[in-house]
Amino acid sequence: MSLEPRPIDFYFDFSSPYSYIASEWIEALAARHGRTVNWKAILLGATFQAAELRSPVAHPIKRGYSLLDFERSARFAGVPLTMPARFPIPTQNAARVFWWLHDQPGARSKAGAPIDARGWARHCFRALFARGTDLSDVNRLRELAIEFGLDPADAEAVWNDPRWKARLKEVNDAAIVTGVFGAPFFVIDGEPFWGNDRRAQIERWLASGPF
Amino acid sequence: MSLEPRPIDFYFDFSSPYSYIASEWIEALAARHGRTVNWKAILLGATFQAAELRSPVAHPIKRGYSLLDFERSARFAGVPLTMPARFPIPTQNAARVFWWLHDQPGARSKAGAPIDARGWARHCFRALFARGTDLSDVNRLRELAIEFGLDPADAEAVWNDPRWKARLKEVNDAAIVTGVFGAPFFVIDGEPFWGNDRRAQIERWLASGPF
Repeated sequence: MSLEPRPIDFYFDFSSPYSYIASEWIEALAARHGRTVNWKAILLGATFQAAELRSPVAHPIKRGYSLLDFERSARFAGVPLTMPARFPIPTQNAARVFWWLHDQPGARSKAGAPIDARGWARHCFRALFARGTDLSDVNRLRELAIEFGLDPADAEAVWNDPRWKARLKEVNDAAIVTGVFGAPFFVIDGEPFWGNDRRAQIERWLASGPF
Repeated sequence: MSLEPRPIDFYFDFSSPYSYIASEWIEALAARHGRTVNWKAILLGATFQAAELRSPVAHPIKRGYSLLDFERSARFAGVPLTMPARFPIPTQNAARVFWWLHDQPGARSKAGAPIDARGWARHCFRALFARGTDLSDVNRLRELAIEFGLDPADAEAVWNDPRWKARLKEVNDAAIVTGVFGAPFFVIDGEPFWGNDRRAQIERWLASGPF
């Protein structure tokens, strides 16, 4: 019996710069080792509360370092990143659209092109961190939906719909039960890895297994 | 005029497993790039308070991950580490002895061998994280002083002496002003790097300068 390699679970929050950086390398790294990636949009607000944590930029002294390190870590990874004027921002609307797309595989844009949740995630991440688009502004988010090939009225209906609010909450609750307390957070073969800076450890695990 | 490369400032707390791991690679990495290292013992209790932070193991959910990650990160770096039964521990006594040795360069052990502050730091780190010796227990610390070639009565006098208490406090206060909020913390050419996991970025900086 051959065992299929298990997918990598990749938890992210749209407002997390380290999640954005990781979103730019995780697929290629996984593919080199014959793995696929399950993208999971979550809200750091919920995991921070569960773990009694705050954003790194909410702490005196650490705030300045973190703002420097976000951009330096992006340069180190070769990922374009400019910290947006407003940060951090609430990202539940973008996340609800993510889960709506996730739950309808094979969806097509108005123009007939295939659209998927991870494409939406990349679109939102790059809008926020490469172009400074405020994802918490519903007007900007409607424009991003149009750019992505969605009907903006459909997207807006999704982020206001109790069903997709509940879906996101269910994902958050499950993430916390799994042990997620920050982002990016990866689970590989049951092993947890927290942070963009665990990339080298993830690479070793994928190449040669537990260490 | 040739510019002498500036030393690397390396801030650590004796109770920090990531500081211990970094203490095992920083000297060799610095030497490969023609740098020396200024070791600086601090107390995380003071920097945590200034930055409104707590130990990673004081947070629900994050605690379990951190205990796993300390040991995995040590294996990844090829450093022997077993988490001690009591953790974290107060380390001000070991730190005061560090600064006492630091401020008397050229000191000799009772047997006449050269002793220095960084040797004491390595001795304490390895005792705590490789052998499980509780540095906060003054009886154990006296034994470590003897092993290191110190008169244990001298060491004990130092950690009870207001002069060395003040010296450690002065170092902590200066570290906080510099922007230190955790450990290990490195300052290289004025650039701050926080964490054992910034090793690859430090290596790039030393090899090719700012990025």
